[in-house]
Amino acid sequence: MAIEHVAVRKLSEQYSAIRSLSEKLALKLQSEDTIIQAMPDVSPPKWHLAHTTWFFERFILREKDESYVPYNPQFDYLFNSYYEKIGSYHPRHSRGVLSRPSMEEVYAYRQHVNDAILHLLDQYHDQPPQEIYDLIEIGLQHEQQHQELLLTDVKYNFSCNPLLPKFAETNSAKRSPLKTETAFIDIEGGLVEIGFEGPGFSFDNERPRHKVYLEPYRLASHPVTNGEYIAFIEAGGYDQPEHWLSDGWATVKKEKWKHPLYWRKTEDGWYTFTLTGEKKLNLDEPVCHVSFYEADAFARWSGKRLPTEAEWEHACERLDHAGNFVENEVYHPTAEEEQTHSSIKKAYGDVWEWTSSPYTSYPRSQPLEGALGEYNAKFMCNQIVLRGGSCATSKTHIRPAYRNFFQADKRWQFSGLRLAEDKA
Amino acid sequence: MAIEHVAVRKLSEQYSAIRSLSEKLALKLQSEDTIIQAMPDVSPPKWHLAHTTWFFERFILREKDESYVPYNPQFDYLFNSYYEKIGSYHPRHSRGVLSRPSMEEVYAYRQHVNDAILHLLDQYHDQPPQEIYDLIEIGLQHEQQHQELLLTDVKYNFSCNPLLPKFAETNSAKRSPLKTETAFIDIEGGLVEIGFEGPGFSFDNERPRHKVYLEPYRLASHPVTNGEYIAFIEAGGYDQPEHWLSDGWATVKKEKWKHPLYWRKTEDGWYTFTLTGEKKLNLDEPVCHVSFYEADAFARWSGKRLPTEAEWEHACERLDHAGNFVENEVYHPTAEEEQTHSSIKKAYGDVWEWTSSPYTSYPRSQPLEGALGEYNAKFMCNQIVLRGGSCATSKTHIRPAYRNFFQADKRWQFSGLRLAEDKA
Amino acid sequence: MAIEHVAVRKLSEQYSAIRSLSEKLALKLQSEDTIIQAMPDVSPPKWHLAHTTWFFERFILREKDESYVPYNPQFDYLFNSYYEKIGSYHPRHSRGVLSRPSMEEVYAYRQHVNDAILHLLDQYHDQPPQEIYDLIEIGLQHEQQHQELLLTDVKYNFSCNPLLPKFAETNSAKRSPLKTETAFIDIEGGLVEIGFEGPGFSFDNERPRHKVYLEPYRLASHPVTNGEYIAFIEAGGYDQPEHWLSDGWATVKKEKWKHPLYWRKTEDGWYTFTLTGEKKLNLDEPVCHVSFYEADAFARWSGKRLPTEAEWEHACERLDHAGNFVENEVYHPTAEEEQTHSSIKKAYGDVWEWTSSPYTSYPRSQPLEGALGEYNAKFMCNQIVLRGGSCATSKTHIRPAYRNFFQADKRWQFSGLRLAEDKA
Amino acid sequence: MAIEHVAVRKLSEQYSAIRSLSEKLALKLQSEDTIIQAMPDVSPPKWHLAHTTWFFERFILREKDESYVPYNPQFDYLFNSYYEKIGSYHPRHSRGVLSRPSMEEVYAYRQHVNDAILHLLDQYHDQPPQEIYDLIEIGLQHEQQHQELLLTDVKYNFSCNPLLPKFAETNSAKRSPLKTETAFIDIEGGLVEIGFEGPGFSFDNERPRHKVYLEPYRLASHPVTNGEYIAFIEAGGYDQPEHWLSDGWATVKKEKWKHPLYWRKTEDGWYTFTLTGEKKLNLDEPVCHVSFYEADAFARWSGKRLPTEAEWEHACERLDHAGNFVENEVYHPTAEEEQTHSSIKKAYGDVWEWTSSPYTSYPRSQPLEGALGEYNAKFMCNQIVLRGGSCATSKTHIRPAYRNFFQADKRWQFSGLRLAEDKA
Repeated sequence: MAIEHVAVRKLSEQYSAIRSLSEKLALKLQSEDTIIQAMPDVSPPKWHLAHTTWFFERFILREKDESYVPYNPQFDYLFNSYYEKIGSYHPRHSRGVLSRPSMEEVYAYRQHVNDAILHLLDQYHDQPPQEIYDLIEIGLQHEQQHQELLLTDVKYNFSCNPLLPKFAETNSAKRSPLKTETAFIDIEGGLVEIGFEGPGFSFDNERPRHKVYLEPYRLASHPVTNGEYIAFIEAGGYDQPEHWLSDGWATVKKEKWKHPLYWRKTEDGWYTFTLTGEKKLNLDEPVCHVSFYEADAFARWSGKRLPTEAEWEHACERLDHAGNFVENEVYHPTAEEEQTHSSIKKAYGDVWEWTSSPYTSYPRSQPLEGALGEYNAKFMCNQIVLRGGSCATSKTHIRPAYRNFFQADKRWQFSGLRLAEDKA
Repeated sequence: MAIEHVAVRKLSEQYSAIRSLSEKLALKLQSEDTIIQAMPDVSPPKWHLAHTTWFFERFILREKDESYVPYNPQFDYLFNSYYEKIGSYHPRHSRGVLSRPSMEEVYAYRQHVNDAILHLLDQYHDQPPQEIYDLIEIGLQHEQQHQELLLTDVKYNFSCNPLLPKFAETNSAKRSPLKTETAFIDIEGGLVEIGFEGPGFSFDNERPRHKVYLEPYRLASHPVTNGEYIAFIEAGGYDQPEHWLSDGWATVKKEKWKHPLYWRKTEDGWYTFTLTGEKKLNLDEPVCHVSFYEADAFARWSGKRLPTEAEWEHACERLDHAGNFVENEVYHPTAEEEQTHSSIKKAYGDVWEWTSSPYTSYPRSQPLEGALGEYNAKFMCNQIVLRGGSCATSKTHIRPAYRNFFQADKRWQFSGLRLAEDKA
Repeated sequence: MAIEHVAVRKLSEQYSAIRSLSEKLALKLQSEDTIIQAMPDVSPPKWHLAHTTWFFERFILREKDESYVPYNPQFDYLFNSYYEKIGSYHPRHSRGVLSRPSMEEVYAYRQHVNDAILHLLDQYHDQPPQEIYDLIEIGLQHEQQHQELLLTDVKYNFSCNPLLPKFAETNSAKRSPLKTETAFIDIEGGLVEIGFEGPGFSFDNERPRHKVYLEPYRLASHPVTNGEYIAFIEAGGYDQPEHWLSDGWATVKKEKWKHPLYWRKTEDGWYTFTLTGEKKLNLDEPVCHVSFYEADAFARWSGKRLPTEAEWEHACERLDHAGNFVENEVYHPTAEEEQTHSSIKKAYGDVWEWTSSPYTSYPRSQPLEGALGEYNAKFMCNQIVLRGGSCATSKTHIRPAYRNFFQADKRWQFSGLRLAEDKA
Repeated sequence: MAIEHVAVRKLSEQYSAIRSLSEKLALKLQSEDTIIQAMPDVSPPKWHLAHTTWFFERFILREKDESYVPYNPQFDYLFNSYYEKIGSYHPRHSRGVLSRPSMEEVYAYRQHVNDAILHLLDQYHDQPPQEIYDLIEIGLQHEQQHQELLLTDVKYNFSCNPLLPKFAETNSAKRSPLKTETAFIDIEGGLVEIGFEGPGFSFDNERPRHKVYLEPYRLASHPVTNGEYIAFIEAGGYDQPEHWLSDGWATVKKEKWKHPLYWRKTEDGWYTFTLTGEKKLNLDEPVCHVSFYEADAFARWSGKRLPTEAEWEHACERLDHAGNFVENEVYHPTAEEEQTHSSIKKAYGDVWEWTSSPYTSYPRSQPLEGALGEYNAKFMCNQIVLRGGSCATSKTHIRPAYRNFFQADKRWQFSGLRLAEDKA
């Protein structure tokens, strides 16, 4: 959940803790790894490290600290991601050509900005002004988002190298001795409320809390597993257009998809590439790295459907947020260990869950003012909402109202699904 | 509104009336015009004439009339549009290579199928079986949809020819002597119902009628006019990323959009290409041939927003459906002639109105069974709902619950917009 | 061979004879056939008819006849193919959108220009001025080139239609009762001359006659046959990179080539699409519709090579020019009927023969002045020379020195090959 | 010039000297620089270092040394460039994703292979077997080619980074105090010989020496300078289609070329990016980084032409080979310092000179046997010959008969031009 509203010292500590995780992750890489961009969707790790730093520099230091001297004025062009109001920026698909600034210089840049931010906070004896507080908070949430992207991007980059490098050594988790069976949990619906309200941080796209009418429905107790997904593959799911959305079927044919991203079939069964190397597929783990198209087709083939984001949030907002997050250092979804299936499990962590909801504005929602208004609102077209966080998300980052979003064909995030159905 | 539930004789008459309009439109073309496909989104007129005929042959005659002999078995491949369950089909983008069958043969094919359909209906003395009735009805609705597409496709094809051919001579309409001003009409909202219910035809995507919660809102009395849209252009709207969705801005830059499709600026002011030739732009007509991206950017620039499809339907479902439809033979949106602006005008006809709603499934909606289930449901991704019909729509085709849908970048339909805003 | 230098009356007759062949060919088509452009390399038949007419209008009537009134000033834009000096022109890949002018109007345009040209010639009592003569002559040669293109383009267009229309009925030719075997004919070489010299027409790219040094070589008595080419296919030629140029192998993989264009393998053996419909492949006919890449790979696989254009011209310039040309109305290469193989056969007609020579300028060659200088010279890059004419070439059009040229991956012309080798 | 035929000790010394230059160049880079591939034509520096090593491993150690254990069997896939006979290989355009093996590992790989090669040579007391000698020699020539590519690729990569990194510090050369004027030198031509013959190394594509007939011609005393090229730009050369080959003009429009690669116009005049940073353009230096299309258009605009490769070789084969080569460590073409222009200057070094000759096989030429036959022969299509070497070429690598070749649109090599004309 969101950062608590705290005194300056606490905020400085949070700042340092969150910022240092980025470096901790990056230090597992060799310097050449930090500059790879194996497809336009991913960014080089070095770029993530510099861009998140630029975010603090540009939106806080340069706006609120008159004494601040920018580290390098050209970084505005190099490390602006997409804020049109700030000015022109380096093309996204060409981030992989930026061998300079070197990693040494990027670390120096981070140090320079960290020092300036902490110095700025030190000037306030007790509480920083609300505006400063809010900007630091969004900067830290932003850093956490890029920590997840750094992991998914490294995974993609490494998967393209026939040497299949490992990001980390296996942090072996206990394995489920007994196969759980998915149950469907009844939920009443009616005129309910969703969206964020109350203390703590939320993005503009989660607000305001508002009324939605839901027909009665049922939500699966668990995310779909690899074993369940293999049944779809073996039944010919990737060869049968009747399960697929039209755009999805076109993608399946064009990309020659036959299984989730990172899977490989051998005589010895299915293998999958992970951040700890290629592994034999564990059938009880949640299926991962599927696109919305695949999630939707699987659901249709199952005679079920995906939940709407309102159904998901209404069903999950009071659940415990414990789960398999980036702090666990497993970097991969894990199998459920409890046999009970009378309640909703694994809603948080492990895999982002595709909903059936296109990403749109909530009624009476207001984007942030200024360039930060571009943070979320301008992407509200041709994207689908995912909920619940993943094994690469920080546990302090996720909330019930949190809305992640990607295009329907994207698969390189830790994206899975949970089934729903109408209640008779 | 939908075809009434009628006796055989009435159904046969409707069949003949609707089918003959396709030929009436096609007869305005020279034979070479019937085979042009100037971009993948459009289909050659000849293809529309054959495909709508194939629809009756394939889904009625071949399923329900054992004595029927297909006109040419290869037509299943040539004139299937996208029904995967039926089998493979000629690629959409290559419809323009089909110089054969010749127009003469396509007319013979239409006659052959018409004769067989009418013969089939004749076998029922009073009422046809419900299933036959339903199939004829969807076939006729389908024919009407393709009549509209034939017009929009001919317009696009002709616009690509420097000779700027005319589809028809101007059917000069009265012009508004006084400029009307747009007012905003208050609407209460609350827990309302939308979706089709009751007698008459509807598509599966309009059903079932279901509850939706609406905050109070205000809807513009008129569609946005050319004059209002020019103010956006002249204010630099096409050069300012802050008004645009991210995908929209990328499209503006890639396609070098500076104004709606078919407009041309001269020293003498703005001109627009129409089905009756290039004309000086009438500032009081509804703006037309704008994409969702442009509609959304215009609304944002205006300090307003687009309505959701639920807001549109709730506000307009009890309005009179009179309007400027294809039967008027104007083939172009017309200016409002009344000065009053205390109510919602021009909701039906003239221009399709972009809503802010992505095209998704209604709660508990059921697609049709079999291949016809592909008619609507599989397109429920990456498309936006438009409402109200246009000057190229049949007046017997439109309904309050009718959902049209296109991708956000499409502009060759008669697509405009109407503004909305939150009620304080 | 080239048009003789003749009196006005003879020139007028030649003009009418050559121009009317275009119409004779076009009259075999239905009007919709005249507007198809199934790939960017081909042009619609109607465009050929109008462009060749524009050539006479633009380069003769508008330059040399002050009284001439252009038929339609917009045709300068529509029917200029690539003459940059003349001004901008309709994009090549979009010729298929030009349903207007209608065929009726194009025939009227042809008549208008024909009348004006014949009227212009009538003004000269005996001999036209040399300049007029030369322009008429190049206009007629140009018309003949487009007659061949019209045939190859119709063939390609028709091949893309699953109905496989026929351009003409089979004009059945006698078939060879005995299989001929290819022999290799010794040729001395040394310091020889190639290039056009002497009376009659030639293009600028064939001049001047100039010295070339040739090592002794041997040239095959016959073009490679379908039967010989099938041996290459069956030996795995399309799967073995070692026979292919690097660009050729990339093309084979990208285009998934497995055989010449228009071939289809059935349980009943190989079939090929021809201008008279799909036919069982005659193994004794010259192989046709192969790219330079395929011709070169076949030669390499055979342990031979392609001849240079100088080798071809030196060996063939004194041979009889009789052969299977467009006048035969077979529209397809035919099998050799004589058993003797002691001399070079079929050098003229049947199939254009790929040489190993890139298309470059002859030493001291001078392009024509003005816009007609663009006719040939600007294409002297990334193209390969073919020699000898085909079954779609006019017999009055070909010469020993004639240089045809296409990119190495093109296959829709009647292009085959003849082998050569070094003489020990 | 080619490596002398020498004793084992001398060969070992040459091996070590040439191999170590690659490392010396790479050591000027930061580790992230070694993995950048800013366009498909360039390769990451690390890849060059590994590929040249693989060449020795694959073609010598694995073929000729039974005791050799490959460093890593996967390197066969990763570092094979294009030898189809060896097996499949990593796609060229994806070399930039290979962050692993790390630079440390690549240096270890180089050491491993160097040790094995020197060990192998040590086994021969005096002279190595001819076959071993020839393979070492081609491996070293190959290494030198990749040293030049490493420089041109780093230059391109760095030019795409807005920070404009420097590869080296300026090694300031003396500048010409007096502007030289280009003269044209008369050459007789006749039946001459070109091609390599005699002792020393040559590639298969330079052999055999053979007769060519040349008309009398004149060759410019100097390469075209920046100042001369600017006159072409200022005369509107890039806006006038009449100077350009058809493919060239299409490229100019598509790529929006307005000047050579790396040039930038400022209010202060022209600047150019070099391996020692961005510099004010020296008007007396040879123009560089022009495509064949630009070279040809400049020549046409000048009323001259490019020489054929035979004209170039015949005129230059007896000239001194001194010049500005990679050993000078200037990494940029330099201005001529002598005022005399009575002879051909700067034929070797500074800039590769585009000829008018497509890259084809010499008469009776024999490619090497086995996979090394792919080294040169399979590229003999759609490429143009360049002669003379550049400031990035080793002085021990170039020869009069040396044929370099690139596609007509390539500009990232140090490519310039020298004019020729017919002798009256």
